[in-house]
Amino acid sequence: MISAARLRCAAHRAGAAAGPLRPVARRYHDIAAAVQPARHEKEPRPSAIDEIMARRARAGRLVAGIAAPSDSDMFKGDTSGMPQAKRWDDHLSAESRSRQPCTLKQAAKHLKKPGLISLGGGLPSSQHFPFASLSMTVPRAPNFSEADTLASGQTVTIGKYDARDAGGVYDLSIALNYGQATGGAQMLRFVTEHTEIVCRPPYADWRCCPTIASTGALEQALRMFCDKDRGDSVLTEEFSFSTALETISPLGIKAFGSPIDDEGLIPEAMDHLLSNWDEKARGARKPHLLYTVPSGQNPTGATQGAARRKALYKVAQKHDLYIIEDEPYYFLQMQPYKGPNQPAVPPPATVDDFVSSLIPSLLSLDVDGRVMRMDSFSKVLVPGSRMGWITASAQIVERYQRHAEVASQGPSGFSQVILHKLLDETWGHEGYLRWLMNLRLEYTKQRDALLAACEEHLPSDLVSWNPPAAGMFMWLEIDTSAHPRAETSSLLEIEEDIFNACVESGVLVARGSWFRTEKDRPLAGLFFRATFASATPENMNVAIKRFGQAVRESFGRT
Amino acid sequence: MISAARLRCAAHRAGAAAGPLRPVARRYHDIAAAVQPARHEKEPRPSAIDEIMARRARAGRLVAGIAAPSDSDMFKGDTSGMPQAKRWDDHLSAESRSRQPCTLKQAAKHLKKPGLISLGGGLPSSQHFPFASLSMTVPRAPNFSEADTLASGQTVTIGKYDARDAGGVYDLSIALNYGQATGGAQMLRFVTEHTEIVCRPPYADWRCCPTIASTGALEQALRMFCDKDRGDSVLTEEFSFSTALETISPLGIKAFGSPIDDEGLIPEAMDHLLSNWDEKARGARKPHLLYTVPSGQNPTGATQGAARRKALYKVAQKHDLYIIEDEPYYFLQMQPYKGPNQPAVPPPATVDDFVSSLIPSLLSLDVDGRVMRMDSFSKVLVPGSRMGWITASAQIVERYQRHAEVASQGPSGFSQVILHKLLDETWGHEGYLRWLMNLRLEYTKQRDALLAACEEHLPSDLVSWNPPAAGMFMWLEIDTSAHPRAETSSLLEIEEDIFNACVESGVLVARGSWFRTEKDRPLAGLFFRATFASATPENMNVAIKRFGQAVRESFGRT
Repeated sequence: MISAARLRCAAHRAGAAAGPLRPVARRYHDIAAAVQPARHEKEPRPSAIDEIMARRARAGRLVAGIAAPSDSDMFKGDTSGMPQAKRWDDHLSAESRSRQPCTLKQAAKHLKKPGLISLGGGLPSSQHFPFASLSMTVPRAPNFSEADTLASGQTVTIGKYDARDAGGVYDLSIALNYGQATGGAQMLRFVTEHTEIVCRPPYADWRCCPTIASTGALEQALRMFCDKDRGDSVLTEEFSFSTALETISPLGIKAFGSPIDDEGLIPEAMDHLLSNWDEKARGARKPHLLYTVPSGQNPTGATQGAARRKALYKVAQKHDLYIIEDEPYYFLQMQPYKGPNQPAVPPPATVDDFVSSLIPSLLSLDVDGRVMRMDSFSKVLVPGSRMGWITASAQIVERYQRHAEVASQGPSGFSQVILHKLLDETWGHEGYLRWLMNLRLEYTKQRDALLAACEEHLPSDLVSWNPPAAGMFMWLEIDTSAHPRAETSSLLEIEEDIFNACVESGVLVARGSWFRTEKDRPLAGLFFRATFASATPENMNVAIKRFGQAVRESFGRT
Repeated sequence: MISAARLRCAAHRAGAAAGPLRPVARRYHDIAAAVQPARHEKEPRPSAIDEIMARRARAGRLVAGIAAPSDSDMFKGDTSGMPQAKRWDDHLSAESRSRQPCTLKQAAKHLKKPGLISLGGGLPSSQHFPFASLSMTVPRAPNFSEADTLASGQTVTIGKYDARDAGGVYDLSIALNYGQATGGAQMLRFVTEHTEIVCRPPYADWRCCPTIASTGALEQALRMFCDKDRGDSVLTEEFSFSTALETISPLGIKAFGSPIDDEGLIPEAMDHLLSNWDEKARGARKPHLLYTVPSGQNPTGATQGAARRKALYKVAQKHDLYIIEDEPYYFLQMQPYKGPNQPAVPPPATVDDFVSSLIPSLLSLDVDGRVMRMDSFSKVLVPGSRMGWITASAQIVERYQRHAEVASQGPSGFSQVILHKLLDETWGHEGYLRWLMNLRLEYTKQRDALLAACEEHLPSDLVSWNPPAAGMFMWLEIDTSAHPRAETSSLLEIEEDIFNACVESGVLVARGSWFRTEKDRPLAGLFFRATFASATPENMNVAIKRFGQAVRESFGRT
């Protein structure tokens, strides 16, 4: 962990994270220079949302009944002229390569025959579903607060036969029956369009596939790409999401940490690590898979800037790494932090400005189709939906589906139909993006409250941190050089002492050592992770005061 | 497939499936024999439901907030005096044995400390969940039909803070946040009590654990028990659920078929197979795992009677097989079939009679704790809930949870809170059992309509079948001895011809060969699977007529 000039750089970087300013049109000043017909300098590009709504209008009403197969190509814009994704046959595990299509789902192709009566599949009759309708009270965009919802929220209803009887596209009779392991066409359309608006993958055959959220998607992806019989391993940040590490390890797969700085993975260090890979010393062949959280990384809170992502993608190309990009916090890219008591930076005013302000996803740079981006509704709507989606090349999504058919069978129908009602039928793409714009400002406020508490209560000679540009987490580094037991105790022991003192004094933080990718290597520094996601500003202030006391006590400053 | 006397035995067995008649109290005739104080012959056993409600009243309101850990022992009745389950260490895979508890979930133990402020876990604040309430219109027990629900259904509402503000036990703020991989305590309580009412496992340390329904649960269980590096294999019915077979195969595990008759697995044949296992010839070590669907097996529709289950359990004990009991159709045990135009047999009048009428689950015989029973709401409520539960010993449930923590993370919160509202808070145990009693009668009607169509339209010298005692499927056997190409074509070729003729004439049935456990062995007979789950009686009649025509044509009887 390189931590020089952490505080100074970080505010700058948080600014950069908000994206380049749009160029101001200057040519009006030149109007007299040469007499030409009036024109606009560039055609105003129609909003991506308008494009999509026009495309929907041309396509007509989506008709997708019980367990109807579908794929993203039904909903994507024109990709002609774009390259096809590379093939990943050599990267896939024996398990994944051996998967065959589900026999019974294949038989469903005959259902297209007019007049056919099916005694084939064991689908229960929707007639016996004990739900006549579901209603929900939700915010009216853009008034998203709890108070606004109570005062002026809207109640929307999902009927059992809305598609059959009321011209709808989705209903309980469809969503609550069996479906494809890809989820229903309805939410697939929404997430495909949303991905097009936000990421615009630069190759032709990209596809989305709904998932049971990213923990489950990661487990599937690891089994698709990793084969312990081949000595496979996974590369990730040197401090990485502990649950991801705990997903990897029981598969008989090793995870290796690549060095990080305030922007996360360091491309040069990753290149060096891979270029000098010693299979024998490492006990695993050179990694062919990278797992990374580019925005608001868990636990360090680091966000890879746009240039950093480009450089990392190049290193991945050089070493033929397939990338699993885990982006739960992508839309929690916050306003830049300018220091205490500084005026707030004005947030993007329009949805288009918001989308332009986001650091491009690795998926947006992915000319090879070497990225599986994992999105999740957990951090931006509700974790309990247990729903998200992946975006990857058609080959990879097809393998993913084959696996899901004999595992999760896709997300809950309740989750799908409820999110569809909210996101697609009630808010629409613009409303949902406005929800995200609002949410990131809420998180900005929370982060700023935690930063203010840190600046107020933590001894600046002992504790340093970066203002996170995205996510939910802040990474607090403790300089142990002045610790009275620096020579006699291990970092782990000091960490444990401070952690216990924290709990004793009434604050729970996460220990840095919990997130070490390689547990058998010495701890690279003394860190604690604090989240600003859920406590109130007042409680964060009290909590950080307690944390500061625990640190001081450990250093003998009582 | 042993098929002697199929039709004759089947009606008898379907009768047996409804359970033994209760003994009539005869002692009143003896009242004058000796003068003794008046008494009841046996204490009227209080209803299991009453017991549970009394237990709940004693325990007080269930308090289980966001991600609160819980286990079945909080909700079970007294198990003192019962044996403990055996340990299954040698049966578990290396993958399963290596799983460690989730670090971050372990840290949550500190949250119990009064006054502690958590900056530890990355749980979003429920304040930012865009759902103020969910309402649903559902049947009022026991008037379960769609028409009744429209006319007199009830609308029930789940608020965001019902537990905090309205004395409730569950609400959106809890259900839609992160939870334990076991699901929330609320549904765990319901399924634990339901399992106690229905199955009463005869050992002390049984536990339930909610799942993402049985396809996902089976995949997890297979990875828990099977290790390709050990040459593991799975034993199952010789015709088995194709999706289960497709789940097993990519794991590098072989599945072997054990002979079946009209009651499914034949204990003596299974014993013979295992006693004479030739590891070399089979290319796999002797199976230590049995996967079986005891009630309304998919695809054969066979139901193991009570004596059959006892005998199978004994064989499992003899060969130390662990049993995965997949029971999606358990509650679809139907009324006995007495032949065409016979008066219907009166169904059980009370909930207690219904529960007594059910064939005991293997779990109910399980003195060793060697059974993992998989239940699912898919066939009895809605498949789209993607929710079910397992019941097994504490050791096995603990390993299952460790896996779920880094895979599905448990069922959807929407599914959990909606099913809880319906099953626990609206219907209660009695109402839910009445729903099941009603549903099995609906399936009985459907089955009888399919049987009537078969009796009307199928050539009885060519096609034979059993009236299924449970489930959704009927297994039609075709006697090919009189087929004009019996000598020149394979069974597979004749099967394909008939299947294509069926599709051509407008009926879809499933081919028997799709369900063969061992694809490399010759087909044991010519079968088709038909379901009576979803088509109307009129459509089933037309469909079976078409099927009969296709069969006749294949035999040259045009």
